[in-house]
Amino acid sequence: MTAPQPTAAVLLIGDEILSGRTKDKNLGFLADYLTAIGIDLKEARVVSDVEEEIVAAVNALRARYTYVFTTGGIGPTHDDITADAVARAFGVPIEHNQQAVEILLAYFKEMGREPNEARMRMARMPVGATLIDNPVSKAPGFQMGNVFVMAGVPKIMNAMMDDVATRLTKGVPMKSRTVEFRGGEGDAAKPLGEVQKAFPAVVIGSYPFQAPDGFATNLVLRSRDEALLEQALAAVRKMADELVAAGKARGWS
Amino acid sequence: MTAPQPTAAVLLIGDEILSGRTKDKNLGFLADYLTAIGIDLKEARVVSDVEEEIVAAVNALRARYTYVFTTGGIGPTHDDITADAVARAFGVPIEHNQQAVEILLAYFKEMGREPNEARMRMARMPVGATLIDNPVSKAPGFQMGNVFVMAGVPKIMNAMMDDVATRLTKGVPMKSRTVEFRGGEGDAAKPLGEVQKAFPAVVIGSYPFQAPDGFATNLVLRSRDEALLEQALAAVRKMADELVAAGKARGWS
Repeated sequence: MTAPQPTAAVLLIGDEILSGRTKDKNLGFLADYLTAIGIDLKEARVVSDVEEEIVAAVNALRARYTYVFTTGGIGPTHDDITADAVARAFGVPIEHNQQAVEILLAYFKEMGREPNEARMRMARMPVGATLIDNPVSKAPGFQMGNVFVMAGVPKIMNAMMDDVATRLTKGVPMKSRTVEFRGGEGDAAKPLGEVQKAFPAVVIGSYPFQAPDGFATNLVLRSRDEALLEQALAAVRKMADELVAAGKARGWS
Repeated sequence: MTAPQPTAAVLLIGDEILSGRTKDKNLGFLADYLTAIGIDLKEARVVSDVEEEIVAAVNALRARYTYVFTTGGIGPTHDDITADAVARAFGVPIEHNQQAVEILLAYFKEMGREPNEARMRMARMPVGATLIDNPVSKAPGFQMGNVFVMAGVPKIMNAMMDDVATRLTKGVPMKSRTVEFRGGEGDAAKPLGEVQKAFPAVVIGSYPFQAPDGFATNLVLRSRDEALLEQALAAVRKMADELVAAGKARGWS
């Protein structure tokens, strides 16, 4: 735990998420993926297909976090402007990346598709970018500095992460433990706060849910230090058992 | 269409979304809700349970958009810090709101629950806030200026929006039309860009999907002007028919 933990932000790009037409699935996937490899996802943003908005968000996030992961806006149509925005954010020109051109030409030839101007737009990338492999539909994503630019289609983005992951410095993954408390948040709040104070290196959250026989609360403990996590877990279990024994174990917050 | 369209941002607050533990459903609900009443959702952010992060996001967003809608962090436990953060963002003190205290005391009495210190924390609000009704579990949300602070539990947040909606200036709702194009994005991109140029007041997006018999693309047109929308729809349909007639109607981007 001597090296600093890598941090990350996710930037979802696209009017379709903000209009409600598309229900995002990429944030949840990336949150799980990054958590599993010990990279702390600290922030996420969703912006529309407006170049200035994308530029501002990319620049705010890349200055602040170890990595930025973007999804969306790298297809062949007029509303696909992510590559232009990232080039502008980095202050570099955009041009057809030769390696991407070759990948696309070979793929379109194989598939019998016309390599028209729109399709070849997908090879346009900021100067200095390196490609991200797309095993699903070939058109690559790209890495520019600490920013990873990926497709919005979940199946493609998920596959791209397997290439991206090889380039990331992994951290110590957060471990988590959950205690299912048969009572409301409000019953557990005070003693839980005391456990939290005793274990500042363990992050404790409480999440109410409706169980078949009444309201209950998941008490979730998270830490990179497994020994400390087990100690805090024992303390939370003891607290929950005592509340049940005292008859304070049912009710909604 | 003379009055300016109201705009909005959504701020989701909570470690559980960024860790992947909880898959957010609130953004999609709010996006649909706001679109239906003619309020343009322009941006969304997800931040962790860290006071400075919440304060910075609230202040960035409330200065920029007509309305800000937050979800999460208003329960009784130590990680529920949204009310404190909003008070700090507005530079006002936080105290027990008398009306909220009365609602909670009556509810806890009715339910036979102890009105302990943790539970009564849910009545703490920035000075000047007005309550948002919670028909599900009583603990109210609150409005402070143009910021609406709601619960993170989807069922409660959804119910709170019915009270919130009565306080919002509605705009002219966006209408949308979809043309299912039996071909790839790359086939439609160039002529579609030309239709977009001819109808700048209609926002045209293209969204590839996998149909049972091959790849296809939804071409989505959005506008507040229904007559213009129908004209653009006719132009896109004509374009799609011509591409099919020319044999350019199958393929992935």
